[in-house]
Amino acid sequence: MSYAALEHQQKRVAHLEHLEAIAAWDEATMMSEGGGNARGEALATLRGLIHDESVKPEMGDWIAAAEATAGELDAWQSANLREIKRVWQRATALPSSLVEATSLTESKSEQAWRRLRADNDWTSFEPFMREVFARKREVAQALSDELGLEPYDALLDGYEPGAKSAAIAGLFERLGAFLPGFIPRVVERQKSQGVVRPPGPFPIESQRKLGIELMRKLGFDFKRGRLDVSHHPFCGGVPEDVRITTRYDDADFAKAMMGVLHETGHAKYEQNLPAQWLGQLVGRARSMSVHESQSLFLEMQISRSREFATFAAPLLAEAFAESARRAPKAFDPANLYALATRVAPSLIRVDADEVTYPCHIILRFEIESALVRGTLDVRDVPDAWDERMQRLLGISTRGNFKNGCMQDVHWPSGAVGYFPTYTLGALLAAQLFETAAREVQELRPALERGELAALDAWLREKVWGQASLLETDALVRHATGRALDTAAFERHLERRYLGTG
Amino acid sequence: MSYAALEHQQKRVAHLEHLEAIAAWDEATMMSEGGGNARGEALATLRGLIHDESVKPEMGDWIAAAEATAGELDAWQSANLREIKRVWQRATALPSSLVEATSLTESKSEQAWRRLRADNDWTSFEPFMREVFARKREVAQALSDELGLEPYDALLDGYEPGAKSAAIAGLFERLGAFLPGFIPRVVERQKSQGVVRPPGPFPIESQRKLGIELMRKLGFDFKRGRLDVSHHPFCGGVPEDVRITTRYDDADFAKAMMGVLHETGHAKYEQNLPAQWLGQLVGRARSMSVHESQSLFLEMQISRSREFATFAAPLLAEAFAESARRAPKAFDPANLYALATRVAPSLIRVDADEVTYPCHIILRFEIESALVRGTLDVRDVPDAWDERMQRLLGISTRGNFKNGCMQDVHWPSGAVGYFPTYTLGALLAAQLFETAAREVQELRPALERGELAALDAWLREKVWGQASLLETDALVRHATGRALDTAAFERHLERRYLGTG
Repeated sequence: MSYAALEHQQKRVAHLEHLEAIAAWDEATMMSEGGGNARGEALATLRGLIHDESVKPEMGDWIAAAEATAGELDAWQSANLREIKRVWQRATALPSSLVEATSLTESKSEQAWRRLRADNDWTSFEPFMREVFARKREVAQALSDELGLEPYDALLDGYEPGAKSAAIAGLFERLGAFLPGFIPRVVERQKSQGVVRPPGPFPIESQRKLGIELMRKLGFDFKRGRLDVSHHPFCGGVPEDVRITTRYDDADFAKAMMGVLHETGHAKYEQNLPAQWLGQLVGRARSMSVHESQSLFLEMQISRSREFATFAAPLLAEAFAESARRAPKAFDPANLYALATRVAPSLIRVDADEVTYPCHIILRFEIESALVRGTLDVRDVPDAWDERMQRLLGISTRGNFKNGCMQDVHWPSGAVGYFPTYTLGALLAAQLFETAAREVQELRPALERGELAALDAWLREKVWGQASLLETDALVRHATGRALDTAAFERHLERRYLGTG
Repeated sequence: MSYAALEHQQKRVAHLEHLEAIAAWDEATMMSEGGGNARGEALATLRGLIHDESVKPEMGDWIAAAEATAGELDAWQSANLREIKRVWQRATALPSSLVEATSLTESKSEQAWRRLRADNDWTSFEPFMREVFARKREVAQALSDELGLEPYDALLDGYEPGAKSAAIAGLFERLGAFLPGFIPRVVERQKSQGVVRPPGPFPIESQRKLGIELMRKLGFDFKRGRLDVSHHPFCGGVPEDVRITTRYDDADFAKAMMGVLHETGHAKYEQNLPAQWLGQLVGRARSMSVHESQSLFLEMQISRSREFATFAAPLLAEAFAESARRAPKAFDPANLYALATRVAPSLIRVDADEVTYPCHIILRFEIESALVRGTLDVRDVPDAWDERMQRLLGISTRGNFKNGCMQDVHWPSGAVGYFPTYTLGALLAAQLFETAAREVQELRPALERGELAALDAWLREKVWGQASLLETDALVRHATGRALDTAAFERHLERRYLGTG
């Protein structure tokens, strides 16, 4: 009975979150500019209702009673109960005064950041960032007391349940040892490769049609989703109706195309979650890193492969016929592959290639965890940033705050503990792909034909269909036979960037 | 304090209704077909929350206390309190068991109708319709007991606060006496008018651009709204972000264009409601008939006028240049005007011209009010329908249920008491336009230039800016100096269809 009450309540929360997701998607894609204030107020009221429903006073008793009769639950129900308890513990750990104060701080800070980043004005922004991290430390301490986790791990746990910074530090140390030597070798090797850039412009409508064609061929179900435009690409909506977005640059089709493929990876995970558990926490995608592993699986492992270039070349040449007529060589599979795998250390994380990307994450992880632990002061962030950019990527960011420590929205908006999931996702994507390449028959020839059916069946069994049944470590073992490590990712990089892959 | 509590609560309700409006718009315009079930469940939960919030136990005390200190309220606050009490009385008048049973009946009946209408199967549909009207009579009786209105008037009041069927019957009797003689004279007169139909096809994108251009010129604010496509055109969204829709037929641009103009009339009302009262009941559009008066003001009074044809002709010829090249005469203002004012008795209400439209409404009003009163049995609806179609429009519908009494979604879905508002709106549109033509300087020359600024200022003062401050009768007197009657409408028809207008 108590478990049933929890399921019923989760369903109500899921219904409200459905509306939140659609309204948030609408805000980013469809909303008229004049609708912003009213939408903000409407969403705030809805989020308040969702919170009230999520921490309703009966829940503690229901959870205790359900745990007392846990023998009656099957594996999915037990996992659902585990997730319900986890989310409820986090939601009830914080006094609402702290939640409100934090939200206010983050909102002020994000607004200040939008203004001050443009002016490269670190001095004015520093006090906002100081206040955000002061709040985050309070939040982390309160969560830590309740959950028995180290403070930074308690924040991390909000994005990546069960993750421990000690384990992440171990992985990142290996990458931090590997990449600074590896990157220059790749850059040096690519110097001698001539690449031909397809000449633009590339009409937006042609790009959109190509994106839709690729999505369809690669398994996005348009009966349960759509593609639209937003300023920042994202995958939103609900599993029954997944809304991905991209943005178009008529001088470079690869940006929108790779963005679409990335979001399609997220979307396929959502669309393939087990239908009978939708609306329950156990039916959700496992975590941010597992989600990112799916977007990177499709974008990095598949779509930047030599096989994919073979598959995509004729589609691209057809989509951009005028460009292909003017520069047929640009649309050779080998050239497209070379373009898709260019490596160059750069300042901006979101524009980074898959080889240099982890460096951007390692430095953010080191800095944010030190800020939460109190071993680094906000005042010293620019120096810490510059020191690490120099060490990891050989780039100076001195005085360049805008494209240095002020480049991301995460810290200004209070998303502390989020960054590591990007690189955990990249490691998992490589580990999954390496396993799949062993276990799925004829994988590479199928990729050359753009046929993902066998691979999707494998992912459905190993990842998608598992939803949140297993905790993340167990899911990784279930799918790949071992814990997450950096070996597959390193082998992938060596094969693709220094070998013949 | 109590009044302030009511305002605060209304704001919360408005926030939730904002999300309901956007989710409903999304369902009709953007949602993937696979998202339907989840959306239905999410909206049902939201509607339940809105209902709970609307009938919160404290409300009765708050209302009583606010009424006891009503002297402290200004005119807008008093009107807001009046509206809050009215809506609350209706919401609390019905036991929730009856609300649920009615909702279930209506949902089953509407589904059956979708299937059975296609098969012209009245015999199978009759029991569903019988059950709907049985429920409606229960609902009407319960509302009647609480509100002290006649049962049918209690239903009517849900769409048209304060309306009385006795008064409507008086208006409709006049129309019913006027139209059956008037229509054949118009038809006879139009026989001798040659009209040239612009040859298609008319590319959808050209139609869309034309629609947007007309909307912009006629005062739709695209910073606070948008135009999209849906199967059934509507005006939705929220006043801060009004979403209108249309559907395109590439063989006939007039359908989408006139639809866009109609919805733009609704939209301008919403966009011009007083900003400081948005989120409160007093800040809403007054009623369905007043809303319809605004859509018909723009569609019928303005957009089918000779002056508008002069304004629109060059825009149409430019939008459909290929058609205009092939048949330049079709784009003459006089020909466009003749096309926009063709009259022909026909079976289907939604396709009817402004002259025959009231006949469709009169017969529905007579039938539904008799069904609620119990003076007509559902079994006899087809005969009653046919008799009135013969009398009013000279058309037989015997055996043609699909395009007779089964044509509308209203009755199958339980919308009883709604139909009269269409024709009340048409009467009010004519009465408003006749008044405006007297009071607004140089109105007709401005229409020839598509300039509505002076007319909009008049409507803002007389209708839009009043929102729900005045009750409907008082609003009509405020705007036109007298109660609603049929005289202006009849003069309008005589002038346009038999005179030189």
